[in-house]
Amino acid sequence: MSQPVQISARNQLKGVVEEIRTEGLLAQVRLRIGGETVTAVITREAVDELELAVGQPALAIIKATEVMLAREA
Amino acid sequence: MSQPVQISARNQLKGVVEEIRTEGLLAQVRLRIGGETVTAVITREAVDELELAVGQPALAIIKATEVMLAREA
Amino acid sequence: MSQPVQISARNQLKGVVEEIRTEGLLAQVRLRIGGETVTAVITREAVDELELAVGQPALAIIKATEVMLAREA
Amino acid sequence: MSQPVQISARNQLKGVVEEIRTEGLLAQVRLRIGGETVTAVITREAVDELELAVGQPALAIIKATEVMLAREA
Amino acid sequence: MSQPVQISARNQLKGVVEEIRTEGLLAQVRLRIGGETVTAVITREAVDELELAVGQPALAIIKATEVMLAREA
Amino acid sequence: MSQPVQISARNQLKGVVEEIRTEGLLAQVRLRIGGETVTAVITREAVDELELAVGQPALAIIKATEVMLAREA
Repeated sequence: MSQPVQISARNQLKGVVEEIRTEGLLAQVRLRIGGETVTAVITREAVDELELAVGQPALAIIKATEVMLAREA
Repeated sequence: MSQPVQISARNQLKGVVEEIRTEGLLAQVRLRIGGETVTAVITREAVDELELAVGQPALAIIKATEVMLAREA
Repeated sequence: MSQPVQISARNQLKGVVEEIRTEGLLAQVRLRIGGETVTAVITREAVDELELAVGQPALAIIKATEVMLAREA
Repeated sequence: MSQPVQISARNQLKGVVEEIRTEGLLAQVRLRIGGETVTAVITREAVDELELAVGQPALAIIKATEVMLAREA
Repeated sequence: MSQPVQISARNQLKGVVEEIRTEGLLAQVRLRIGGETVTAVITREAVDELELAVGQPALAIIKATEVMLAREA
Repeated sequence: MSQPVQISARNQLKGVVEEIRTEGLLAQVRLRIGGETVTAVITREAVDELELAVGQPALAIIKATEVMLAREA
């Protein structure tokens, strides 16, 4: 298991795992966060190591430089 | 101005601009999205071009491969 | 379908879809942009949602902080 | 100086440096690539080390997983 | 302070902070990790929140999809 | 084959390929770098083009803006 850390990423959003789809090396995981759904693509290895499962709490972690902004056109 | 597009990014979260801090080439922008705050670091140019301003609606756009997952330790 | 947006990403390059290869959760899509080919790896879901197809126009969207520079050695 | 390498990134686009703006730790560099302009934000250190200068050839290097796709709305 | 988490990122490399340079919204931080130096650009806010300081232990966290590979030419 | 370049990425870590797992469009490659293991997810195409193989030298290339920092909790 990976060790507990405090991480520099500005975005650490708490939610609940809603769906996990695993194919090949990767998994597509959806979290329910407030009224929104957030989708992550991570390795299958990470899903196994974190023991992620539908219905369990999890956080979406996103570095601020990876976030773009937009306006409705 | 950039043209209106539909984009492949899985995460397109609607919120309201809460804070804009601009220094040098970049800006750090916070959106209020539901009960969460999301922080983006984008270019100052983009802030100007999109005419982002505190109190206005905006979206945070995040590619699914940029999202990590975590569990509380 | 995702809504039309104006996005902060500095790079929004117009081209034509040249190839789509889908396997598992992902798709590898090539665009012809001027004299260059640009390759994207996105989710299969996004390909379906945007109804991307060979021969159709599309844009490659890239955040400026994701672009590296190099010189021929 | 960094050593010559062959790199896995799918996108290696040849162009000419059009503009370099340096402030603080970063630089915003524009390349002219065919009929398009590509903008990169890299460290000032990297600009100095590669001796990038307006009018000189350079390449934009972009990992395929960092490219999103879009359609005009 | 951010809460302790276990994170999905495949790369969690232990080192010691060697240098911190802060300008504007960002900081450029170097870690000594084994015989290598790793450079991160993160927000100044994150440096303050994690109380990073030269000589202290820290980890570099990198998502596997952000790592490219290369061969010496 | 991709051409030899000098690249702006601040992190260019020399190691030896320890494992390659290929499934679908992608490959998960582990490098041994000093006492650490670094994991990359790149396209299968790139593995073939660079002729990466277990036991061979390779470099992990990481843009500084993609590196987060953390402290043990």
